[in-house]
Amino acid sequence: MEAEKQVEWGRKAWELLSLIRMESPLIQCITNFVSMDLMANTLLSAGASPAMVHSLQEIPDFTPHARALCINIGTLSPSLLPAMNAAAELCSNLDTPWILDPVALSVSDFRFNACVELLRFKPSVIRGNASEIIALSMASLQHTNTNTNTTKGADSVHNSTDAIEAAKLLAQTSGAIVAVSGATDIVTDGNQVVGAHNGVALMQKITASGCSVTALIAAFVAVDKCHALDAAVSALAVFGVAGELGMKMAKGPASLRMHLIDALYGLDEATLQSHVNITSLC
Amino acid sequence: MEAEKQVEWGRKAWELLSLIRMESPLIQCITNFVSMDLMANTLLSAGASPAMVHSLQEIPDFTPHARALCINIGTLSPSLLPAMNAAAELCSNLDTPWILDPVALSVSDFRFNACVELLRFKPSVIRGNASEIIALSMASLQHTNTNTNTTKGADSVHNSTDAIEAAKLLAQTSGAIVAVSGATDIVTDGNQVVGAHNGVALMQKITASGCSVTALIAAFVAVDKCHALDAAVSALAVFGVAGELGMKMAKGPASLRMHLIDALYGLDEATLQSHVNITSLC
Amino acid sequence: MEAEKQVEWGRKAWELLSLIRMESPLIQCITNFVSMDLMANTLLSAGASPAMVHSLQEIPDFTPHARALCINIGTLSPSLLPAMNAAAELCSNLDTPWILDPVALSVSDFRFNACVELLRFKPSVIRGNASEIIALSMASLQHTNTNTNTTKGADSVHNSTDAIEAAKLLAQTSGAIVAVSGATDIVTDGNQVVGAHNGVALMQKITASGCSVTALIAAFVAVDKCHALDAAVSALAVFGVAGELGMKMAKGPASLRMHLIDALYGLDEATLQSHVNITSLC
Repeated sequence: MEAEKQVEWGRKAWELLSLIRMESPLIQCITNFVSMDLMANTLLSAGASPAMVHSLQEIPDFTPHARALCINIGTLSPSLLPAMNAAAELCSNLDTPWILDPVALSVSDFRFNACVELLRFKPSVIRGNASEIIALSMASLQHTNTNTNTTKGADSVHNSTDAIEAAKLLAQTSGAIVAVSGATDIVTDGNQVVGAHNGVALMQKITASGCSVTALIAAFVAVDKCHALDAAVSALAVFGVAGELGMKMAKGPASLRMHLIDALYGLDEATLQSHVNITSLC
Repeated sequence: MEAEKQVEWGRKAWELLSLIRMESPLIQCITNFVSMDLMANTLLSAGASPAMVHSLQEIPDFTPHARALCINIGTLSPSLLPAMNAAAELCSNLDTPWILDPVALSVSDFRFNACVELLRFKPSVIRGNASEIIALSMASLQHTNTNTNTTKGADSVHNSTDAIEAAKLLAQTSGAIVAVSGATDIVTDGNQVVGAHNGVALMQKITASGCSVTALIAAFVAVDKCHALDAAVSALAVFGVAGELGMKMAKGPASLRMHLIDALYGLDEATLQSHVNITSLC
Repeated sequence: MEAEKQVEWGRKAWELLSLIRMESPLIQCITNFVSMDLMANTLLSAGASPAMVHSLQEIPDFTPHARALCINIGTLSPSLLPAMNAAAELCSNLDTPWILDPVALSVSDFRFNACVELLRFKPSVIRGNASEIIALSMASLQHTNTNTNTTKGADSVHNSTDAIEAAKLLAQTSGAIVAVSGATDIVTDGNQVVGAHNGVALMQKITASGCSVTALIAAFVAVDKCHALDAAVSALAVFGVAGELGMKMAKGPASLRMHLIDALYGLDEATLQSHVNITSLC
């Protein structure tokens, strides 16, 4: 039965990737400056149409045309934040899915508060690493319960032991699908928890690989916005499979980066189906 | 006679590439954040000296030393626009060639109006895709004829059927050489129309490949500013040939990007001559 | 005895690279937009943890956690400069090493004055090319001696014949270790002068390779801050060796870039030891 479910996940992932290639959904990215190149190339290789449009002035004209929005706070600045808020709010109002990548939110109050503020606009998916999700989960809770100014509280947050529980809690308080990247990628809607086991460790040595998979999630959600959990799991699996395929030819992180993008571009159904490794965790 | 002309174009392209390698012209780029890395590497590989200098404060000191200027509105922001205007105006006054890449100008009034404003400073060359050139052509016409506030008018613009006619019109109203990228690259001075047929379709899956060829045009115009049409055609052909050579070893868009830059760096006269494919269209 | 010294340098470089791989020091980079991708990947490949954090708001929260700071003025803007000054001052107060890369400081008064201002916060290491170091050396001297407004003075600066003497002078007036990149990389504390002879000429055709080695110096100094000269020499040698190894497989600047990063990631003790080429110059 587990084998049957794998086949089903493989079919789902292939179906969504095929939709992206066919429809070439326009994905707006308001993202950090380190990630722009790899993120745009990841989206192009998957078949989507990336648009790095981040000026506040352009949001009212442009954002309504986007099929999904990816917001990443990696190099947050005071000039980018109002555009992020405006775009997220507009997407929320238009029922356009948007995805939040709370990069290193704990490193400053500025970044942390920006994330808490963005949560108000109801992202469809939040993707981060374990410590980011734990930190945001705590913030979300404090915000909901006490309505006082949230603070960073890095220490207490980091004592939390279970990213899965934090992810479920964040999913419940935020209403978003929450994805935690790691050796196994965890995705939850607050109830169901799915594990995507694809990918290779060396991908962590490629800057912006995490940012790029968040953008890829945006593309997958764009073509199936009513099933954001399935879309997020599929995107993580597809990116992970591309990493596994790339790893066969890679001699280090830079060649892995190249081969991963090539593999994502050339990925066919049989290869995807035979590599997808997704399980229910609870 | 067509064969003779091909040889002549090959000679011209080689002559200009050789001049770039010899003189290493300083090319100022005020460009979007996605393109900076590939654009700088494209210019370096061709033999030019790129300088990503975009602060308003630096324009009076720096721009007079540039041999050409490339302006690209891909991630336009209110802080970049005054620098673009100042640099374009200075180049115009100093008779330094400057090239405009009106990336996605139709996505917002902000971007559209910025392009119309920049046209006042008389770019030597404008390069865009078909829909960008069509949109800018309409804008240029309205501006000239009616002097009312131009609006985006995306729909009517997109109904225009002929990018060649739009390019000729834009060349006539703006005084610039106009280049339209596509399966065949079109270049016109408003009268003569030349087609450069080099390149491969997969180049469209490399982010900033269009931006980078615009910068390459700037380098070619820098070493032959009295013949901007020849320079633009040569640059498009050289970049396209590098793409064809790269394609022989590429397994996807990321490896194509690498091999293209390597090929541009190593391009020799015989290879260029045997690959150049340029024709008169009318 | 020269052979013995080579072995000693090889051991030192390996020891520091191993420390970086073990400790994964957090390196804050306030750098230009062209370099962010390659710089982050260089740091990751060496084993360090890069953080491109450049908002003024984040300095007080974040900078105290950094083990070293890299400041690069390549695309300086009025919004970046206050963050650079604040971070440099904080590092100076906290005894955290910080490294200055005065990219093209002579191209504008804005850039030049920014460098002179930054010198007040006592960088541990300054790395530039010959003309940058000569220009900064003159500036440093004028500032120290006359306390008048420094001016660019590009012409007189460029008449100076000896980058080694300029580097020694700058080291003496600034208190920093000064590194001059070139066919032979020169490193001096104002007294001792060491030459690192590794690397290949084609590295100059990779945009941001200079910026990236500056960041690598920051990582090396982070794990041995009491011996900044040894750390700087080791970083330059390690990056140069990675370039030599990469060159064996490269077919141009883009593939060299990839193979260099792969080689840096995979560098082992025996290979490093057999390639390191460092000599005392005086």
